[in-house]
Amino acid sequence: MRREEIIEEFLDELASASPVPGGGGASALAGACGCALAAMVCSLTVGKKRYQAVEEEIRADLAYLNEMRGIFLSFMDKDEEVFLPLSKAYALPKETEEEKASRDQVMRELLKNAAEVPLRLLELADTVLDTVLDVAEKGSRLAISDAGVAAAFMETCASGAVLNVRINTRVLKDEEMKNYLEERTEKLYRSASEKCAKIRGIVAGR
Amino acid sequence: MRREEIIEEFLDELASASPVPGGGGASALAGACGCALAAMVCSLTVGKKRYQAVEEEIRADLAYLNEMRGIFLSFMDKDEEVFLPLSKAYALPKETEEEKASRDQVMRELLKNAAEVPLRLLELADTVLDTVLDVAEKGSRLAISDAGVAAAFMETCASGAVLNVRINTRVLKDEEMKNYLEERTEKLYRSASEKCAKIRGIVAGR
Repeated sequence: MRREEIIEEFLDELASASPVPGGGGASALAGACGCALAAMVCSLTVGKKRYQAVEEEIRADLAYLNEMRGIFLSFMDKDEEVFLPLSKAYALPKETEEEKASRDQVMRELLKNAAEVPLRLLELADTVLDTVLDVAEKGSRLAISDAGVAAAFMETCASGAVLNVRINTRVLKDEEMKNYLEERTEKLYRSASEKCAKIRGIVAGR
Repeated sequence: MRREEIIEEFLDELASASPVPGGGGASALAGACGCALAAMVCSLTVGKKRYQAVEEEIRADLAYLNEMRGIFLSFMDKDEEVFLPLSKAYALPKETEEEKASRDQVMRELLKNAAEVPLRLLELADTVLDTVLDVAEKGSRLAISDAGVAAAFMETCASGAVLNVRINTRVLKDEEMKNYLEERTEKLYRSASEKCAKIRGIVAGR
């Protein structure tokens, strides 16, 4: 099968009404694309005389980005693992008081898990953005636009993760947990957005 | 081969030093992902009693988004078609005056082509965002976060396209063409960004 056909097949699944892959898996994929693009800038920098002074750092960035790319991809599975049981639990009976209480109990646990996975994805995006920033500052100028596209993908990963935390926390009945998750999300998103803005500035300047 | 392996293979290619796929192809892929996610919201809306009043519009949006997804993917090839000859032309000799003049002539044409393709991609993203906006307004509330992730992907497509116009126009020696391309790019990007902001507002509100 040709690469295009596989990509089309994946996008067909994404476009379908089936619960996964959805926005969560797509956000994880965006993070993986961001890593790959930043790694490309590193690949185009190492071994170049002009960038000899930063060779070692860029090599370390490259190895790190390739490792993190795998972690981002593993979040596509994690998203499915927490989302599938949740999409089934929504269909649990809620006629009697007993059924309602039991459903509430199940939902509380599943919603917490379903919010925690994108929160960890957001943490990852925020952390990896430090390396994308380093690559944008030190990498080959010839590939600087790719560092900018890498940051844009990482921003999609982060903002997608935020939406996927919130769609779960907004129906979470455990107020303390809800507040904790939402505050942490907001803080991380602010941090990630600031790094993306900084990268955009560096890219425009170089 | 499993889906994950194919995605990894594609990302390996992206991360490599080979000229394509790069930021241009990845931007086109982001647009295709945006279409697929917005289509998913449509798929989760059609046939639902609660959304009967908008059934016809959402069906039309779904058909349109699936068609446009194919157009976005075709831009991955278009990007390779204009970028490969350009990456070769950079290596043309420029020792004698004659060589310089001939190289300039070739570069001018290739840079114009290489800037026009992402400009058309940007136009497409701006146009398709009208439909994503419609989906965010009328589609199922249960999938509203996916409409938000769709907009984030479309924004990455648009901002990636802008970077890919500029990396070519900044070395274009035809000032009139350069100004025309850059002004049109700025105008379209402003329009696309406004639509994305509007969608974010709708998603947060619903």
